Amino acid sequence: MQVDINCDMGESFGAFTIGNDEAMMRYITSANIACGFHAGDPMVMDRTVAMALEHGVQLGSHPGYPDLMGFGRRVMDISLAELENYILYQLGALWAFAKAHKAEVRHIKTHGALGNVAFVNADVARAVARAAAKFSKDLILIALANSPLVEAGQEAGLKVALEAYPERAYNADGTLRSRKLPGASIHDPQVAVERALRMVREGVVVAYDGETVPMKADTLCIHGDNPAAPQIAAALVEALKGAGVQVRPMAEFL
Amino acid sequence: MQVDINCDMGESFGAFTIGNDEAMMRYITSANIACGFHAGDPMVMDRTVAMALEHGVQLGSHPGYPDLMGFGRRVMDISLAELENYILYQLGALWAFAKAHKAEVRHIKTHGALGNVAFVNADVARAVARAAAKFSKDLILIALANSPLVEAGQEAGLKVALEAYPERAYNADGTLRSRKLPGASIHDPQVAVERALRMVREGVVVAYDGETVPMKADTLCIHGDNPAAPQIAAALVEALKGAGVQVRPMAEFL
Amino acid sequence: MQVDINCDMGESFGAFTIGNDEAMMRYITSANIACGFHAGDPMVMDRTVAMALEHGVQLGSHPGYPDLMGFGRRVMDISLAELENYILYQLGALWAFAKAHKAEVRHIKTHGALGNVAFVNADVARAVARAAAKFSKDLILIALANSPLVEAGQEAGLKVALEAYPERAYNADGTLRSRKLPGASIHDPQVAVERALRMVREGVVVAYDGETVPMKADTLCIHGDNPAAPQIAAALVEALKGAGVQVRPMAEFL
Amino acid sequence: MQVDINCDMGESFGAFTIGNDEAMMRYITSANIACGFHAGDPMVMDRTVAMALEHGVQLGSHPGYPDLMGFGRRVMDISLAELENYILYQLGALWAFAKAHKAEVRHIKTHGALGNVAFVNADVARAVARAAAKFSKDLILIALANSPLVEAGQEAGLKVALEAYPERAYNADGTLRSRKLPGASIHDPQVAVERALRMVREGVVVAYDGETVPMKADTLCIHGDNPAAPQIAAALVEALKGAGVQVRPMAEFL
Repeated sequence: MQVDINCDMGESFGAFTIGNDEAMMRYITSANIACGFHAGDPMVMDRTVAMALEHGVQLGSHPGYPDLMGFGRRVMDISLAELENYILYQLGALWAFAKAHKAEVRHIKTHGALGNVAFVNADVARAVARAAAKFSKDLILIALANSPLVEAGQEAGLKVALEAYPERAYNADGTLRSRKLPGASIHDPQVAVERALRMVREGVVVAYDGETVPMKADTLCIHGDNPAAPQIAAALVEALKGAGVQVRPMAEFL
Repeated sequence: MQVDINCDMGESFGAFTIGNDEAMMRYITSANIACGFHAGDPMVMDRTVAMALEHGVQLGSHPGYPDLMGFGRRVMDISLAELENYILYQLGALWAFAKAHKAEVRHIKTHGALGNVAFVNADVARAVARAAAKFSKDLILIALANSPLVEAGQEAGLKVALEAYPERAYNADGTLRSRKLPGASIHDPQVAVERALRMVREGVVVAYDGETVPMKADTLCIHGDNPAAPQIAAALVEALKGAGVQVRPMAEFL
Repeated sequence: MQVDINCDMGESFGAFTIGNDEAMMRYITSANIACGFHAGDPMVMDRTVAMALEHGVQLGSHPGYPDLMGFGRRVMDISLAELENYILYQLGALWAFAKAHKAEVRHIKTHGALGNVAFVNADVARAVARAAAKFSKDLILIALANSPLVEAGQEAGLKVALEAYPERAYNADGTLRSRKLPGASIHDPQVAVERALRMVREGVVVAYDGETVPMKADTLCIHGDNPAAPQIAAALVEALKGAGVQVRPMAEFL
Repeated sequence: MQVDINCDMGESFGAFTIGNDEAMMRYITSANIACGFHAGDPMVMDRTVAMALEHGVQLGSHPGYPDLMGFGRRVMDISLAELENYILYQLGALWAFAKAHKAEVRHIKTHGALGNVAFVNADVARAVARAAAKFSKDLILIALANSPLVEAGQEAGLKVALEAYPERAYNADGTLRSRKLPGASIHDPQVAVERALRMVREGVVVAYDGETVPMKADTLCIHGDNPAAPQIAAALVEALKGAGVQVRPMAEFL
């Protein structure tokens, strides 16, 4: 048994600092690095790439909408052609820093509102996958399990990493419970850790309505943007290892 | 005898259109493509890369200061580390579009105020060369002849293309006459063409004070941003060919 | 009989030039001036304000989404609070240039995708009106005739100018025919002029399906972004005057 | 005896948070509010204006270079006309929020690198003063004591508030010791408080070389961007009051 742990990284911008990147790098295996559209800048990207490589963490591009003021959290009605080119641009930008550090961009994961749209809109999902495949067929596409992005990635010839969220509630059909509803987030770290264990070991999660539903996960997404995040991450990794699960970069087993 | 012709391309942004890219592509051999900091956006970059490749024109990155409002024409007092990372970011962004079109970024040329600084400040010149070399030692660095950028590029292990400006006046020491002085630009196309011919065939230019000075050129820079630009470009290419000069991408002979 | 003519102005940005502002100013009475979010910058705003005042044209703010790359033409899912504050910001920015030129901002008109949303979404319409009223109850709100923005403006205590588009087709219910459908735009200047005359003199327009529908207009919107725009504007003004219609700033009769 | 205390406020941007605004508002009398060019956005401006007014703190505009990525800390070689218009734009933007909250913008203070240039370059100082005066002759211009900005403000017909920095070292000629030199900042809060007391009560400061030099101050600038800032501010206000100095908005006594 094995699983990857991914986390959003490099979301600072200029003098504006966000996150606990240094602390989180100790626990994760794949870093989703912001590429300057919704967060991140060239200095932050360079620093984040260096930091990830020091910790043996794989590099991934985390493209978002061109909306720094909204941190990429607001849906923008852009065309599919715009979306493809925005993703290419951001992938390439990160690739340059990977190259400068003699490493590679191994995966891609859409950010914020763009992710939310790609998880429900098949056209957008296909545009994301198309852009990634144009860049490199060797990229792993992180796709929310049970979302149209999974199939879109496979059709585009990409490796797809099924992703699950231990800290989020699920519907009985395996989709994420909307953040607009109560109970969308799991705030108790112990509960989140237990959910993660069942996802990895049993391939299931208990949905909001109590039903046990299939939830196979290649990579678990954890959040880095709250003060307790490093502690939760540490507890998660310890519990996984204690249960005989190897925590390793998905690029090694996909 | 052979020479490359380079021109700034892809300087439109969103709904804002600049230049005669389509018309100019017929005459040039290397396109310096804006990368989103001072001009250009992902849609424009994709379009410009496609257009260049259709015309057999080589792709180059044209990085500038992060100053869209000033079109990269205002010096910004950024650190050398910032400069290196800004260049890497822009190189990578263009590289993604090259890759999506199964081509390569072959050269780099600094834009506007950044170019002006790199032409006189050896520290900045070295930072530019360092960034380019980190990205790829196969890049050709376009460097104003007689500027510190030439040596910086050679020291960094890059191929350096000596660049001359048929439409600009020169000082007797081989440097460009400042645009702040009268007579800095050559407005008569016929004169510009004749200057270009002497640069390529004899390796000299007549300076503003009348002195004939050495001016070896691997690539001639022409401007695309005035209505007469395509006509000037056509006359230049015709005159060069008529004089037995091959106009071809510098990547083929450097 | 009297009518105002409004046109989007000041949409250049830095080195990027859009429109025929100088030519259009001769024919219009109210200028909708971009405020830096989707177009325009402080230099352009200053120049546009000066130019409008030289021609006796009233100043209006033309706020849009914070999306320069998309020219404000893409819907952004921002909150109503964000919308209000974005509008306030842009109103204030223009007001400073009006003040520097000893004039006043007299009206407001939403731009592009923001306008389209405000024309159909009552919540957004009310937020627009609320922001304008917070700024000044003396502002005239330009509102598409038959849209929820009309009532929103009246409820907020603003003067509302009913706006009609001679160059656009209408549905039988008095709403604009969607640009996604064929025949949405009137390309024949003569037809546009005749439609304008009926709007102003008879308060009607012939809808796409042939039905004659009420269309009272305080201000006619004309486009400035095509090469023929000044000619169309000249023809429109001449026809209106020839028919005994006074073309004057709406601030003088509302 | 009386003095104003000013502090930079509203420097957050979107999801990026900077500073301890809420805590600092309790101690200051004038807030220098970022206006969106180097920091701040419309939501932050609205919130900061509301917060300042709740605490009886006066509103001031804090214009900077258009360089969010550099936080306005990098000199940009803009023209004087650009500078004037950039300042007008930022003044107006803040004015809208003041107006929406039924208050007024009372002062202006240049930010970061722009401030540094205005403190030594008389042409830039005059452009700053000219822009402020175009906006309103009622504005107070905060000007570093002994800098060309003082005279520029007076010439432009503005009220000028002489500003001193208790946390910065001074040269014997009354100018600020460069941050590039050791000992430029005073890190001991107690020392800073004592320096502030002498500035206000005796109109002097002990320069870096030990000399006592005149330093009349209408307003003291304190920093809000370190964790200890509220404690330092509290100690400063307590010491001033204990020494019989009234801490009140400069608009009340200038």
